[in-house]
Order: sequence, then C-alpha cells, then structure tokens
Amino acid sequence: MGYDAQYATYQQIIEQALERAIPIQQADWPEQTMPKMLGDAMRYSLLAGGKRLRPVLLLAAYNLLHDDVTPALPFAMAVEMIHTYSLIHDDLPAMDDDDLRRGKPTSHKVYGEAMAILAGDALLNMAYETMAHSGHANALAALAQIAARAGGRGMIAGQTADIAMEGKPADEHMLRYIHQHKTADLIAAALLGGLALAGANHKQLALGEQYSLHLGLAFQIVDDLLDLEGEQQLLGKHTGQDAGHGKLTWPAVYGVQAARQDAARHIDTAVTAANGFGEQGQFLAQLALNSLKRVQ
Amino acid sequence: MGYDAQYATYQQIIEQALERAIPIQQADWPEQTMPKMLGDAMRYSLLAGGKRLRPVLLLAAYNLLHDDVTPALPFAMAVEMIHTYSLIHDDLPAMDDDDLRRGKPTSHKVYGEAMAILAGDALLNMAYETMAHSGHANALAALAQIAARAGGRGMIAGQTADIAMEGKPADEHMLRYIHQHKTADLIAAALLGGLALAGANHKQLALGEQYSLHLGLAFQIVDDLLDLEGEQQLLGKHTGQDAGHGKLTWPAVYGVQAARQDAARHIDTAVTAANGFGEQGQFLAQLALNSLKRVQ
Repeated sequence: MGYDAQYATYQQIIEQALERAIPIQQADWPEQTMPKMLGDAMRYSLLAGGKRLRPVLLLAAYNLLHDDVTPALPFAMAVEMIHTYSLIHDDLPAMDDDDLRRGKPTSHKVYGEAMAILAGDALLNMAYETMAHSGHANALAALAQIAARAGGRGMIAGQTADIAMEGKPADEHMLRYIHQHKTADLIAAALLGGLALAGANHKQLALGEQYSLHLGLAFQIVDDLLDLEGEQQLLGKHTGQDAGHGKLTWPAVYGVQAARQDAARHIDTAVTAANGFGEQGQFLAQLALNSLKRVQ
Repeated sequence: MGYDAQYATYQQIIEQALERAIPIQQADWPEQTMPKMLGDAMRYSLLAGGKRLRPVLLLAAYNLLHDDVTPALPFAMAVEMIHTYSLIHDDLPAMDDDDLRRGKPTSHKVYGEAMAILAGDALLNMAYETMAHSGHANALAALAQIAARAGGRGMIAGQTADIAMEGKPADEHMLRYIHQHKTADLIAAALLGGLALAGANHKQLALGEQYSLHLGLAFQIVDDLLDLEGEQQLLGKHTGQDAGHGKLTWPAVYGVQAARQDAARHIDTAVTAANGFGEQGQFLAQLALNSLKRVQ
C-alpha cells in the first residue's frame, strides 16, 4: 500500500472508532452513561475532523512491529482525546481566548465556559479509561509512556511556559522549551505509547524518541510559518493570532528563511530515525517529509 | 488500634506521600521535571490539608484484605489528586466562582485562572501516571474502577448537572442525581479502587459499592445542612453560598428535620455493608457513624 492509501486507512479506522466512543444520548440525564449536554460537547470537539496525526502516529508505531493494528486502537483514541482536551482548554478565554478552531466556533463559544472546562476534563479522563479497558498485556507500560508526556513534565509544561511568556521579549531557550513540550511531547506520547504497546526494545524506543522530538519541533516551526504567512483558509483558524498575543514564534526570533532551514534539518533527523526501522519505517519517513511540503 | 489512631495513621502516611509527590523546584524551568509555577500551584491545592477522606477510604478498603497498605499508597494519592483537581476547576469563575477553600484563597485567586486550569489538568494527569507507575499486579483493574467513577459517567456527570440546574426549580430526581455523581461516585472510586487493587471478589465489590453510595449520599446531605446552618469557621469556606447560587440542596427540598433523618438512614445502610466484612469492617462502620456527628 502506498503512503497516501496507508494514511487514509489509518485515518478511517480512527474516525470510526472515535465516532463510536461517545454515543449520542436521547435522554438529558441517562442513568448508565453521561449527560447529553456533556456528551454533545465532547463529541463536538472530538469529531471536528483534522488530520488525526497523533493517533495515526500511534498506529504506525505499533505497525512497525505488528501487522494488525486493532489492539492499538484504544490507545490511538486516547491520544486524540488528550489532544482534543488540550485544545478545548487552550482556547478558553483565560488561556488563548480563541473563538475559532478548525473552521468552527470553539467549545466555550458553543457550550459556554463551564461546559468547555468539563468536556475537556471528561475527555482527559476518558483517555485513561479507554486505555485501562483495552485489556492489552502491555497496557500499563503504554499508558505510563503517554501519561509522562501529557502531564506537568510534558505538554502541560509547554502550555505553562506559553502562558508565562506572553508579551515577554523573545528568548531562544524558552522558545525551544515551549515547542518541545507543547508540541513534540504529545507526538512522542503517540510514538512511544504505540511502541511500548507493541513491546519495543530500548533501541526501538530511542529511535521513536528521536523521531518524535524532531518531527514535533519541525511541525511547530511549520505551524508558526503558516500562521505568519496568514493561510487562514488552510488552517481554519484566525491567523496572525500569535503575533497579536505577543507570542514567541520561531520565524519571529530567527527569521523566515532560517526557520525554513531549521525545519528541514529537524525533518532530516526524523527521517534518519525512521530509517532505523528499515523497510517498515518508510511510512514514518514519508510522513515527516510531507510535513515540510506545506511551507515549500 | 482504635478508630481515631487508625485514621490518624492513614492520614499521616498519606500526607507524607503527597508531600513527596511534587518536589519544590529551585529553577523556574527545570529540564527533567515540571515548571516551578506549575508545581507550586499543584502543591498549593494538594497540600491544603483536609481530612483526606477519599485516600483514607482507599487504604481502609485495601486493609480489609491485606495487612500492609504500602502497595495501595500510589492509588490513595491518585484519588486525592483527582479530588483536588475537581475542587480547583469547580472553584473557577466560570464554574462556582468561589474565592475561599479550606480557609485559603482558591487557586485562581492566587495563581490566576490560566494556571488554575493547568494545575487541575496536571493533577488529573498525575493521578493516572502515579497509578501506572505503581507496578502493582492489579493496577489496571483498580485504575479502571477509579476512571469509570471520576469521569463523564461519574463525578463529571454530577458537576454537569450541578451547573445545568443552577437557578432552576428544585427537582428531587436531579438532586439525587447530583449528589450521587458529584459526591458518592468519587467515594466509590476510592472504595472500589482499593478493593480491586486488593483482589476483592464480586461479593466484596458489591458491599463496597453499597457502602460508598450511601456514605456519599449521607455526606452530601450533612454538607448541605452545615452550609445552611452557616458554620463558616468549621468549614473554612463561605457558607450560605449554595442558597446564594440558587443551588439545589437536600434540606431546601425536604426540610432540615427530614434531611437529618435521611442522612441517618443512609448511614445505617452503609454500616450494614461495612459489617458484611466482619471484624475487619469496623473501621469503615465507625467512619460512617462519625460522619453524622457533625450535625447531631
């Protein structure tokens, strides 16, 4: 199967699984499951489309060592639930105060702030519940890999720095800190969650770590470039927001040309890591190369 | 050991474990752990004292079947982290908008709304990470019991109903729904998490379910009575808040006298369940009886 067909296959089984994850409720307050308004708010953000990059990476990582990705599906759903909760909370008025996400009004614009906070909390909790119910022999090891990178030493460290640095003078060290934690850590959660679930050895985990760190850093630089260049339609959100919020971005610190080169260098390193998996690593290598195309 | 000494022993090992859970950072942005401001905000709420009811219940449940509670400590910490995150988010301006909790300014009053949201998120994530790292053979089963009752079908369902019903006419069905989910479900998470970790059988899990549902319902009625009667100093928070917010309370719907009787009836049922564990169940029975004393 070629790269595009493979990506589409992963994406399709993820969409189907996510669609089933939260049933549509008829009653407002059903006894055995969640309130209708909570489920609606969770579905609204979880099923808003997108490339499903993180769950695709998790399935691809599992696929490096096993042909059938079905056992990894609960973990793929979990990383997308974690990603979605982080977007809902990031968009809140007290955080980035965004009113548009993937071309749709953000959660708090539709459901109000209180429900957006609770829908995010419930998605984070559901991520762990979904992993716990997988029944996979390596579930606890994979869950630990994901938890370590989603929490206060990982993605939330990046969000904390992002908030703390708003409006402050650009600092290269902090910029790297924010990109690594806010973006690369959840990509690493997906890669290493998938590998740990697959029973990967230390060498394979180290390749996964290298791949995801550099893919994540490149990804954030590319996002910053797109934001700067104002492709509002492409991104489905208001662009130029970062500058408006006084946020640090890679092109703002290093210039557009150097930012492009840095992204390309990170992708080189990611591709090298993917090639460490031999023939099986081709999909991950191609995915890394494709992420550059948006700004070339 | 008598009841009070036993409670104090549980409480002490929990406090010590929580104190070690989040080290105080010297640097603002340490590389291997969480940002200082995030850790500070998490510690502020996690170490604010309180009776530590939920982790005590988890250790006591484990203690029904095993003499040494040390292996259950990560799970006791986890339920307290979940309880603490839920309080931080509940107190936010978009939710209950409380400025005082356990006699201290609430998290968002001290650290700002953005940090309060992130500190809550990080505590919820840390709860699952702590359970995953326990290495206990029954970790996944216990984690699943806790996740099922902390999430959208459990505690968060209660918070959703609480928000949705503000200012609406009292409805007995919804009042019971809110109490069961908002309060009893996390108490059940502690009981059943501890029992599942201990390898309890179905009959023992059912006793734990009965005990925690009725203890939880009684607990909420007692809290409502205390709020009504305005023991501000005892509770360390502003009282009369519920009425001010137009919130449903048990005494508001049924009257003070009937509420007292309902609480006593629930405690009777909880004590019967505790006695199902024989001699070992004495601590849980006494804990239930003591919870009534505050309003007698």
